[in-house]
Amino acid sequence: MNKGFRQGIVNIAEICAQKEIADVIISPGSRSAPLTLAFLRHPELTCRTIVDERSAAFIALGLAQQTRRPVGLVCTSGTAGLNYSPAVAEAYYQEIPLLLFTADRPPEWIDQNDNQTIRQQQMYGGHCRGFFELPVDDSPPDAAWHLERIISDAVSTSLFPVPGPVHINVPLREPLYPESEFSYKKDAKVVSLTPSERSLSESVWQELASVWDEASKKLIVAGMHNPDPKLSKSLRELQQNPSVSVICDVTSNLSDASKIQHSDMFLGSGDLQVCQDLVPDLLLSFGGPVVSKNLKLFLRERKPRMHWQLQSSPQSIDTFQALTRIIPVSADYFFENLRKRLAANEGRSPGEFEHSYAGRWQAFEEKALSSIKKFLAEIPHCEFSAMNTILNRLPPQSHVQLGNSFIVRMANFLGAPDERNVKVNSNRGTSGIDGTLGTAVGAALATSKITTFIAGDLAFFYDRNALWHKYVPPNLRIVIINNQGGGIFRILDGARSLPELDQHFEVEHNLTAKNTAEDHNLSYMFCDSAENLEACLSEFFKPSDKAGILEVHTDKNVNAETFLQFKSIMKELK
Amino acid sequence: MNKGFRQGIVNIAEICAQKEIADVIISPGSRSAPLTLAFLRHPELTCRTIVDERSAAFIALGLAQQTRRPVGLVCTSGTAGLNYSPAVAEAYYQEIPLLLFTADRPPEWIDQNDNQTIRQQQMYGGHCRGFFELPVDDSPPDAAWHLERIISDAVSTSLFPVPGPVHINVPLREPLYPESEFSYKKDAKVVSLTPSERSLSESVWQELASVWDEASKKLIVAGMHNPDPKLSKSLRELQQNPSVSVICDVTSNLSDASKIQHSDMFLGSGDLQVCQDLVPDLLLSFGGPVVSKNLKLFLRERKPRMHWQLQSSPQSIDTFQALTRIIPVSADYFFENLRKRLAANEGRSPGEFEHSYAGRWQAFEEKALSSIKKFLAEIPHCEFSAMNTILNRLPPQSHVQLGNSFIVRMANFLGAPDERNVKVNSNRGTSGIDGTLGTAVGAALATSKITTFIAGDLAFFYDRNALWHKYVPPNLRIVIINNQGGGIFRILDGARSLPELDQHFEVEHNLTAKNTAEDHNLSYMFCDSAENLEACLSEFFKPSDKAGILEVHTDKNVNAETFLQFKSIMKELK
Repeated sequence: MNKGFRQGIVNIAEICAQKEIADVIISPGSRSAPLTLAFLRHPELTCRTIVDERSAAFIALGLAQQTRRPVGLVCTSGTAGLNYSPAVAEAYYQEIPLLLFTADRPPEWIDQNDNQTIRQQQMYGGHCRGFFELPVDDSPPDAAWHLERIISDAVSTSLFPVPGPVHINVPLREPLYPESEFSYKKDAKVVSLTPSERSLSESVWQELASVWDEASKKLIVAGMHNPDPKLSKSLRELQQNPSVSVICDVTSNLSDASKIQHSDMFLGSGDLQVCQDLVPDLLLSFGGPVVSKNLKLFLRERKPRMHWQLQSSPQSIDTFQALTRIIPVSADYFFENLRKRLAANEGRSPGEFEHSYAGRWQAFEEKALSSIKKFLAEIPHCEFSAMNTILNRLPPQSHVQLGNSFIVRMANFLGAPDERNVKVNSNRGTSGIDGTLGTAVGAALATSKITTFIAGDLAFFYDRNALWHKYVPPNLRIVIINNQGGGIFRILDGARSLPELDQHFEVEHNLTAKNTAEDHNLSYMFCDSAENLEACLSEFFKPSDKAGILEVHTDKNVNAETFLQFKSIMKELK
Repeated sequence: MNKGFRQGIVNIAEICAQKEIADVIISPGSRSAPLTLAFLRHPELTCRTIVDERSAAFIALGLAQQTRRPVGLVCTSGTAGLNYSPAVAEAYYQEIPLLLFTADRPPEWIDQNDNQTIRQQQMYGGHCRGFFELPVDDSPPDAAWHLERIISDAVSTSLFPVPGPVHINVPLREPLYPESEFSYKKDAKVVSLTPSERSLSESVWQELASVWDEASKKLIVAGMHNPDPKLSKSLRELQQNPSVSVICDVTSNLSDASKIQHSDMFLGSGDLQVCQDLVPDLLLSFGGPVVSKNLKLFLRERKPRMHWQLQSSPQSIDTFQALTRIIPVSADYFFENLRKRLAANEGRSPGEFEHSYAGRWQAFEEKALSSIKKFLAEIPHCEFSAMNTILNRLPPQSHVQLGNSFIVRMANFLGAPDERNVKVNSNRGTSGIDGTLGTAVGAALATSKITTFIAGDLAFFYDRNALWHKYVPPNLRIVIINNQGGGIFRILDGARSLPELDQHFEVEHNLTAKNTAEDHNLSYMFCDSAENLEACLSEFFKPSDKAGILEVHTDKNVNAETFLQFKSIMKELK
């Protein structure tokens, strides 16, 4: 039989399957072979093999971001697992469940100059929700009990109380390969975790509702959030009251619940009166980070008297430097209950709206909208116009992944593509460019809907290994807005005039994605004018049996000039 | 003037230059702009800008590996610095000095949902020789003193007592860009560190020498080591005594000091008599890891009575599970002094050599040599034959970087290319495939000599971003032995017969490096036969104004069959 090949390791896959894990991303290795085989052979798990661990982890993150279920990762011992760390940090701040299984040498071999042996315990520092070390031997019954319990606990910890990455370090002795077939222990110990929700007591609700009622200017700010029709409905109903305005971010997936989508633009006007009229008494925020720097500056400089935030941790996440109260319940629960409680004594007459708090926000929104429409009609082909065209041509009900840096900033100025009901994601947990392509690949694997990744050239090439495998799905569409470097520096006030700009900030290059597309069997289109772009897009989003890249060439100087124009029209919004 | 732009940050570059830093690798970012500009503008520093931080760190490692001086790295805040971590671990175990400057938000902004903000303190865990956090503000004179002192200390810590990576986290507030030119404070505080060496007292020497004299079978094992003519000379002289044998590793750069270069082959014979004849009384080891698994198994299974190791740490690095004594001095010092002390009372008559301990090793070495020559003459074109051809065609006095996995193992079986005086390096600190190309790029930047990187296809593609910049030097030669996947699994006993072999261990693919060469402006040659290879190599090593790739196609099944043949001839060596 399989002498020395550990049944306990085999059972990990069984426990994961019973705990409703569906996907595992495996990077090849020998030390990790027992884990690899346990997962690969389990009939209920979908396993994919990806060589570059950095991309593998971002692909897992993209999958889990869409499914909201933990995705397993398996790698061998040594530096392999360190390549997971950028994705681990992003998952931590995006609150995405991941299970990181790192194979390891047994502890006695650490620091003994043997191959692929490093200090793996706690290797993800403060960016994990949990760290577990598996026993080296599970032949003593108590060790077997420990191992099985750890797997249940690790899965539960990746989901509760706050979802996030969990690290399971797995020391393994030889033999690493089984001599014959193995079977799963169907009655392995599984500790299930009953879903639960936090709620507020009647007396707390009374207090909150009375403060809410008394506040005459109430602003709700939505950060990054998953689509949630029930939440949207509650927010729409709360806005029947003209003292309530809801601002949404391009990543908040609430464009059907908020009419204010261009605050990033008009709050950039720098006009004191604009700001003074819009300062709330009560600010209520929820969700992840917000993209808008102008919104952050507005609220930091003109602090509301009260700032309540729906968040799960007891430590302040005080983005606006105004936080006064943490309310640790979900947005869904909070707004539905608030709405129910207020429904009786609220109402709205059309007459009062114009001069109301909500009316003032609405007026600025409309000014911004007409101003940006005019601007877009007049500008030449550039990254800004291309971004607008692409966002407005995304297939209805499709998914989009926005790259970081200037890509997501442009999208936030333009606003989420309304009425098309597009789901928007972006790696705003840590806002790195390092794994955005991989995240999009993973997200595309989780759905049959078209998933469009929009990114700059640097972000694309940085993570091109995310295309280096057999699973690039045919519903993936990659739009590269190529400005031959990191164009964001050309529009940053301090950086623009530096003599080092071209070479050391933008890092100019003349690489295109053509060869990368060919290497990884993706279709490829190139365009460098507005007309081209329109024509390409008609083809690009059609269903296809392979993924595609559309590379949009833009001129960095035109990009910068256009953005300066945009800034000047922002300033005129009063 | 430059209001708010910190003079203290500018001075870091000055202190680094005075502490003899010569090279800095910068990855672009905005938070890191003050550091970037301080280093870029310093007249005594050579700065290079590389986008992908993972490759950037390995390039720095390659540079420092050759120069033995600390190389600076600069990145922005957030996950950028996490991409350094695989190279940091490799540098830690290879004892290579690196200075990691990670820009950070000020501490009050951590975990506040602001961009590119993660938990950066101690982010490299146990793989740094030191962690320093710079003050946020250096306007108080004591803070300025603290900052300057930290930079001196960080540089010193990267070199003493054991070289390695040191992390300096640099929290920065806006403004991040200077309004006008800045100048360096030439009298910034610099604390120099006087070079020193550890030595042994007369009484310790007496004791060691008397044990040495009494031992009748003395085996010296050299691990990974830099070339050192003085050390080679001492080792050659010590071998005048036929009770002394020196085994070297392909990475020990001592082939002129050891006649035993094929122990990996004959110790694999598994013959009891072979082993019994060769077990030493006294084992003396120095340097880094050894590649040979057969040597490790031989010494672990047949422990010498005494094992002395020259190492710098007080914790056992007990690769052979036989360690009895740590001697914390350099190999250079130790063997020179041992030789001097013994010179008087040693001598060697040719007659005694044949049946001596050294003679027995020599006999096996000769058998192995003739057997491997015969084997190489008979085998078809495969990775083993290609590796032999390439090693023997390396330009004299050139440098070679060996990829991990099967590449370095083949080289160790074949032995370092004798008499050509080639310097051999390999990332054996952690034996990862993740950054070997970057390391070779960095090593090539440190010299005008031809630097040849030999790697498998997976290692090449994994780190292809190491070619994505403007500094790929014309003396770099990349040989890819392409077996369409991770061929090592096809020769591993347990893995070979797995049904998952092709797809999930080898990860078969049909990618070539042609497009990558074109994208990054390298010359490209392809060959798939022994004749082709010979012809290509004549061209390949000629001086050129650009770097080149030679891709050697091999058949994975022929590779595996040939290696099995090799294993069977190893077994016959008795």
